[in-house]
Amino acid sequence: MAHPLLHIANDKNLMESLAEEYGTPLYVYSAQRISENIQRFNNALQLSFNKYHLCYAVKANNNPNLVSYMKSQLPLLGGDCSSPGELCVVKQAGMSGEECIYSGNYESAEDLQSALSSNAWINLDDITSFDRLKRIGLPKRLSFRINPGFGKGTFSQVVTGGKDAKFGVPKEKIVEAYRTAAAEGIARFGLHCMTGSGVLEKAYFENMFNALLAAAREIEAAIQCSLEFISVGGGFGIPYKNEEPSLNIEKVMENLSTIFYQQYPDRAQAPSFWCEPGKFLVGDAGILLTKVTGLKEGYRNFIGLDAGMETLMRPGLYGAYHRIYKVGDVDAEHSQVVDITGRICENTDRLAVDRPFPKVGEGDLVGIMDVGAYGYAMAHQFNTRPRPAEVLLHENHSELIRKRETIEDIFQNCNV
Amino acid sequence: MAHPLLHIANDKNLMESLAEEYGTPLYVYSAQRISENIQRFNNALQLSFNKYHLCYAVKANNNPNLVSYMKSQLPLLGGDCSSPGELCVVKQAGMSGEECIYSGNYESAEDLQSALSSNAWINLDDITSFDRLKRIGLPKRLSFRINPGFGKGTFSQVVTGGKDAKFGVPKEKIVEAYRTAAAEGIARFGLHCMTGSGVLEKAYFENMFNALLAAAREIEAAIQCSLEFISVGGGFGIPYKNEEPSLNIEKVMENLSTIFYQQYPDRAQAPSFWCEPGKFLVGDAGILLTKVTGLKEGYRNFIGLDAGMETLMRPGLYGAYHRIYKVGDVDAEHSQVVDITGRICENTDRLAVDRPFPKVGEGDLVGIMDVGAYGYAMAHQFNTRPRPAEVLLHENHSELIRKRETIEDIFQNCNV
Repeated sequence: MAHPLLHIANDKNLMESLAEEYGTPLYVYSAQRISENIQRFNNALQLSFNKYHLCYAVKANNNPNLVSYMKSQLPLLGGDCSSPGELCVVKQAGMSGEECIYSGNYESAEDLQSALSSNAWINLDDITSFDRLKRIGLPKRLSFRINPGFGKGTFSQVVTGGKDAKFGVPKEKIVEAYRTAAAEGIARFGLHCMTGSGVLEKAYFENMFNALLAAAREIEAAIQCSLEFISVGGGFGIPYKNEEPSLNIEKVMENLSTIFYQQYPDRAQAPSFWCEPGKFLVGDAGILLTKVTGLKEGYRNFIGLDAGMETLMRPGLYGAYHRIYKVGDVDAEHSQVVDITGRICENTDRLAVDRPFPKVGEGDLVGIMDVGAYGYAMAHQFNTRPRPAEVLLHENHSELIRKRETIEDIFQNCNV
Repeated sequence: MAHPLLHIANDKNLMESLAEEYGTPLYVYSAQRISENIQRFNNALQLSFNKYHLCYAVKANNNPNLVSYMKSQLPLLGGDCSSPGELCVVKQAGMSGEECIYSGNYESAEDLQSALSSNAWINLDDITSFDRLKRIGLPKRLSFRINPGFGKGTFSQVVTGGKDAKFGVPKEKIVEAYRTAAAEGIARFGLHCMTGSGVLEKAYFENMFNALLAAAREIEAAIQCSLEFISVGGGFGIPYKNEEPSLNIEKVMENLSTIFYQQYPDRAQAPSFWCEPGKFLVGDAGILLTKVTGLKEGYRNFIGLDAGMETLMRPGLYGAYHRIYKVGDVDAEHSQVVDITGRICENTDRLAVDRPFPKVGEGDLVGIMDVGAYGYAMAHQFNTRPRPAEVLLHENHSELIRKRETIEDIFQNCNV
């Protein structure tokens, strides 16, 4: 399927005016697409669940202005945080602590103190985290993240459940974790699971949910409580290629709800169903607008851009594929096979390898698609390259939501 | 061989006082070790070459205070830069443009303008870069980077010569590049080659140098000039494991000089020999001081630290191995096999896998070795984690050379 933002990448006038006004490289986010994704996800939940709560996983894109916009599009939206910094973002975006969940791992005492002060629902990664938390103070409500012993992900690096994963309480120890917390006087509980990232297969979520619900029932029986929520975390994938299927999120939720209400037939008394998607809400809404700086016909042919591994780590880090279009010329004949690279002095710096691509010249604009999630969030300043600006594109205007970094910014903390 | 900074990692009082004063995670650099490395490299050059020039590759570690210190230890030290930001660093460190080389790739016009204004020796990656430069203005002196058609590196990602590399003018086209530049009136030339990173085999440099010198002679004959310098770039490796050999840099230089003066028997008239090491000068001089935040006995056993992939990318990005020591307890029995991880919500976040390690408890200090190069330089803020402070450790005192980032710093450009 064609990319949902193809009309934007194809709008040469718009892209040229953005490049002119803000410079390149530039992260451009479509407000409309973000809003559509949020509404769609929320509707899918609403159609299938009596009680639910949707939290945005801030790690995907932590721009406070972007998160504020998301909150404005769905007033009930909460935040999924994993650090004190992310707690600051959701607060700035107008989310109350009660609307948020804090899922850390190997948290420091300071991290846990921040989480406790924020009133977010603390979701612990291990029973040792509970011991640490106890020394600081116990919240009224708590959940644990279970590792069901299996997981799935687009890349091995992002599989977050299973025997190799660093996350979660092994399912064999999960009941013990709740018993320990209940013995300390905690009375309100949830249960959390997050096993992968970028998953596009419906059936996977169903298998995972069955394992999760079996654990939920075991916990409830063991500590004589009703769980207030059950969360499947995130991991809802988006297609990065035209030929990849997109996830039928409505059908996923419908199937999950069938499984859910088989276990909890009394819908009014059933736990709330929680989700914390990141990429699904913002991933396909971002375009990295970049300019051709140089071309080389060498042992291979290269297109050099003013964006590289320092701007977008996913290709270098995971070998991830991103669609890349010559702006305003999407249907051009692919007349050459090239590697697309940045200006970094390292061979890792490839945004695409062996990619059929139309002819371009120096100064031409190129759009790298699907960079709304884990794009700017992992950008750095290797080779002393300042990071790009970020722009939120509304229907009739563009809004600068992060200024371009300067070289002085890079060294601001060196004046000591 | 034991690590040269073992005595520092083993000095519990020192490490505890640094952690107390500056917090963790903390990049700690040994001034003495940096000075030793610079002196050693310079002496090796001095012993073997009549004329030489040593430039520090700023990309390895761009802290301006660190580079200033390096300059103070060797007044003739120049800088190897690859971006306008790095040109700022060397200027701040008191290096003149004439002492520096600018090696870009796929440079933008703005990059080339900066390089030209700086008076650094511009070293071009391709003949198309020359065309771009010509539109801005031509310098009096120039060099090209040759790709000899082969390369070597610790990881495939850092092989910077060869048929898959994005760098350099293919050797088949190198004479043409010089002819073009000479025809435009440039009269002073050098020749550059940089084919790999982290190389520990002496013989490799000799093979590469033979190919380079053959090209040099061909160029000189074709354009009837004497090259002013020939540079072998960097790529001089350091051992990351006790059992890895260290590079005998004195012997490398001696052998290179033998080859060199066979081609240029008149030593007084021979080109100057240039080198631009980065890692060799600062790599083993850095320790990342970090604190145990959490422990988990799960499907695997984990030690969680307050440093992760956001602090040090090399293990996640390349699968790189770094020695990791429990501070003050280096000889302790390795009583468990663990994965060492940070707090990032991603499974890539492993600093070591299946590592034998002594027992530790929460709050214990741990030192990650050999992080002086490509450590802070590639650090980022994933999961909204502020970056560490950097400290230069002198004989009797420590000097803060970069303040710890705050959460506010992360979002400073979002107030728009």
